[in-house]
Amino acid sequence: RIDGERLWDSLMQMAKVGPGVAGGNNRQTLTDADAEGRALFARWCEEAGCTMGVDAMGTMFATRAGEDPEALPVYVGSHLDTQPTGGKYDGVLGVLGALEVVRSLNDLGIRTKHPIVVTNWANEEGARFAPAMLASGVFAGVHSLDYAYGRRDLEGKSYGEELARIGWKGEEEVGARRMHAYYELHIEQGPILEAEGRTIGVVTHCQGLWWLEFTLTGREAHTGSTPMAMRTNAGLAMARIFEMVQEVAMAAQPGAVGGVGQVTFSPNSRNVLPGTVVFTVDIRSPDQAKLDGMRAAIESRAAAICAELGVGCAVDPVGHFDPVTFAPELVANVRAAAERLGFSHMDLISGAGHDACWAARVAPATMVMCPCVGGLSHNEAEEISPDWAAAGTDVLFHAVLETAGV
Amino acid sequence: RIDGERLWDSLMQMAKVGPGVAGGNNRQTLTDADAEGRALFARWCEEAGCTMGVDAMGTMFATRAGEDPEALPVYVGSHLDTQPTGGKYDGVLGVLGALEVVRSLNDLGIRTKHPIVVTNWANEEGARFAPAMLASGVFAGVHSLDYAYGRRDLEGKSYGEELARIGWKGEEEVGARRMHAYYELHIEQGPILEAEGRTIGVVTHCQGLWWLEFTLTGREAHTGSTPMAMRTNAGLAMARIFEMVQEVAMAAQPGAVGGVGQVTFSPNSRNVLPGTVVFTVDIRSPDQAKLDGMRAAIESRAAAICAELGVGCAVDPVGHFDPVTFAPELVANVRAAAERLGFSHMDLISGAGHDACWAARVAPATMVMCPCVGGLSHNEAEEISPDWAAAGTDVLFHAVLETAGV
Ligand SMILES: NC(=O)NCCC(=O)O
Ligand SMILES: NC(=O)NCCC(=O)O
Repeated sequence: RIDGERLWDSLMQMAKVGPGVAGGNNRQTLTDADAEGRALFARWCEEAGCTMGVDAMGTMFATRAGEDPEALPVYVGSHLDTQPTGGKYDGVLGVLGALEVVRSLNDLGIRTKHPIVVTNWANEEGARFAPAMLASGVFAGVHSLDYAYGRRDLEGKSYGEELARIGWKGEEEVGARRMHAYYELHIEQGPILEAEGRTIGVVTHCQGLWWLEFTLTGREAHTGSTPMAMRTNAGLAMARIFEMVQEVAMAAQPGAVGGVGQVTFSPNSRNVLPGTVVFTVDIRSPDQAKLDGMRAAIESRAAAICAELGVGCAVDPVGHFDPVTFAPELVANVRAAAERLGFSHMDLISGAGHDACWAARVAPATMVMCPCVGGLSHNEAEEISPDWAAAGTDVLFHAVLETAGV
Repeated sequence: RIDGERLWDSLMQMAKVGPGVAGGNNRQTLTDADAEGRALFARWCEEAGCTMGVDAMGTMFATRAGEDPEALPVYVGSHLDTQPTGGKYDGVLGVLGALEVVRSLNDLGIRTKHPIVVTNWANEEGARFAPAMLASGVFAGVHSLDYAYGRRDLEGKSYGEELARIGWKGEEEVGARRMHAYYELHIEQGPILEAEGRTIGVVTHCQGLWWLEFTLTGREAHTGSTPMAMRTNAGLAMARIFEMVQEVAMAAQPGAVGGVGQVTFSPNSRNVLPGTVVFTVDIRSPDQAKLDGMRAAIESRAAAICAELGVGCAVDPVGHFDPVTFAPELVANVRAAAERLGFSHMDLISGAGHDACWAARVAPATMVMCPCVGGLSHNEAEEISPDWAAAGTDVLFHAVLETAGV
């Protein structure tokens, strides 16, 4: 078994880096806080006897050597970046849980056949730079490096510039590494495990996603002196699209979600009808046909809404992944480990996207999940218990050992 | 007649201060650009032989002395501050038109009985610091100085601090001055004059306004892993309130408008349902009962929408003025001046709020309007013709002379 106290202590130390405003964290990708978190993680990896490699996207790979010089490594990790008002566990548990696996192997003097690589993927959240899971996407060959470097935050700063600025642009070619397998531990971020009273989620699939960034073009005009009939109201079109997305998501129940998290009005003045409204619709489903059907319905109905109001409508799909089926042999390892350790468990479909979704394109991959209170995540109040964290990490430990070979 | 070429030249010079991104201006209240515009205006006033006074709100009063030492001054002005993406004429024409009246009196060697005070009211737009017409509101005793100093922009900077920072916090007590009368020239900012083919609007009334700032409180949660039934969706509540405001405004036709120009999502991340959505509803009508009825309907229907979604709903009325009836004797002066000068004219109700609305509470007041192309304002593409500007200023000149006495 792993050392649950040491794991919890590391989680609490990392939570001090980039504190939020309400008990959580703001350690967004490529900020100074991200750099500070990376430095702390790098020190811990060195203390655990690992060798650090950094690729040109800023992903960190800490290797614990294996016995067999020919054997490909087993990768284990997640991400240390957070939402602007994020929790202390989303991603962090997966990275520090992987580190705890290595620390426990050291304590127990266990040598594995395959090397183990503790991985901190860059820009998983996609909050500052869309899309999410950007570095793992480049690693898997889904995005080009140029595309990734050119992604910009709301202030116009690019990924490439900011990566260089914080000093974590590595030499290593992105995606050059070959993986024997990939495991990722993560909090569920949803309510199912807690509601069902299970400690471990055996993740069989991940639902697919589209992020549709709408740019609506109206006519900036005075809110007081512009008659109702003369308005080209991009704000009203936005509101109607919101409601329509809700309708489309409800009609696709069960097994689908849809909503909007980001909206920008321009010029954003109380007495000016907006000239431009930009917002991103987030739709997801584990069912490919349903997901694509939702996208088609939303785009055509949005076009009709805008046409009726005379508002210009452009759609840019700034994020996408297809539904994922995880590797059955790794899923079986996770299930067997939970069983062996005596943890209650159930199969789960991940509601959120994870780096494991992209890793699954280049290697056998799967995930382990543990509950979080009230299913709440992407909220500073995100909470888990030390027991849940330890249980998830124990299962990860056993599953990784199974694959890495003793 | 005034010198239309000199007036136009001054308008174009002022438009160089705080240029926008699309041919207009960004000279928002108490920014460095505002300070630069004030300095240019102060120099012109000095060159025209005026004495400058500045009050504790930063309003500028440039006095051309009168013949009668007992006579109260006639105030003539508007504002030099602009929207973030504002036009070159909104407010500016009224200030530089008033200056042109003084310059023309100087040219013609005319002495008036009453002094004439060219006035640049601070923070008319209310874009950076709500509410609009803030300094004239303090002048008229509607707001306290403390209230005004405490108003904050979206970055949290206060009016009082920013006024001191740009160096335009005057010594003069706000509202200590007494006015014989107040005239304001302004572009219509609406489509009526152009559509009716008239050069001069004789402004008899101004419609009333409510700015209702809504703060909706939902629950920050993951857009992917939070089931539809578990969402407390403040964004969806906002969308439904938008549509409802549109319905209320349409039901109140004719003689009413309603819309939303400013929306802020928090934390504003694509994969986080917003914890807080703040937006301001702007409703207006010349009919007091209708205006108050709209407000009541919007507040009660918004409360019901939020209750159904479990979203918290707080409403703060951050801006308000009742419908205004301008002084009949001054209105008659404007109409007679247009008649005498041979300009086509019609009576108008102002759709926008103006400093004249607050001045009307402490003195006889009215306004002169000239057309703007397509009724477009609060848009960098705002346009007028030099002839319209000159015609409006000629009418202002004659009306002011009538009141100031030769
Ligand atoms: N796990 C997680 O929150 N990832 C961010 C990408 C997503 O929105 O699913
Ligand atoms: N004239 C003008 O645009 N004033 C700003 C206040 C308002 O919104 O009416």
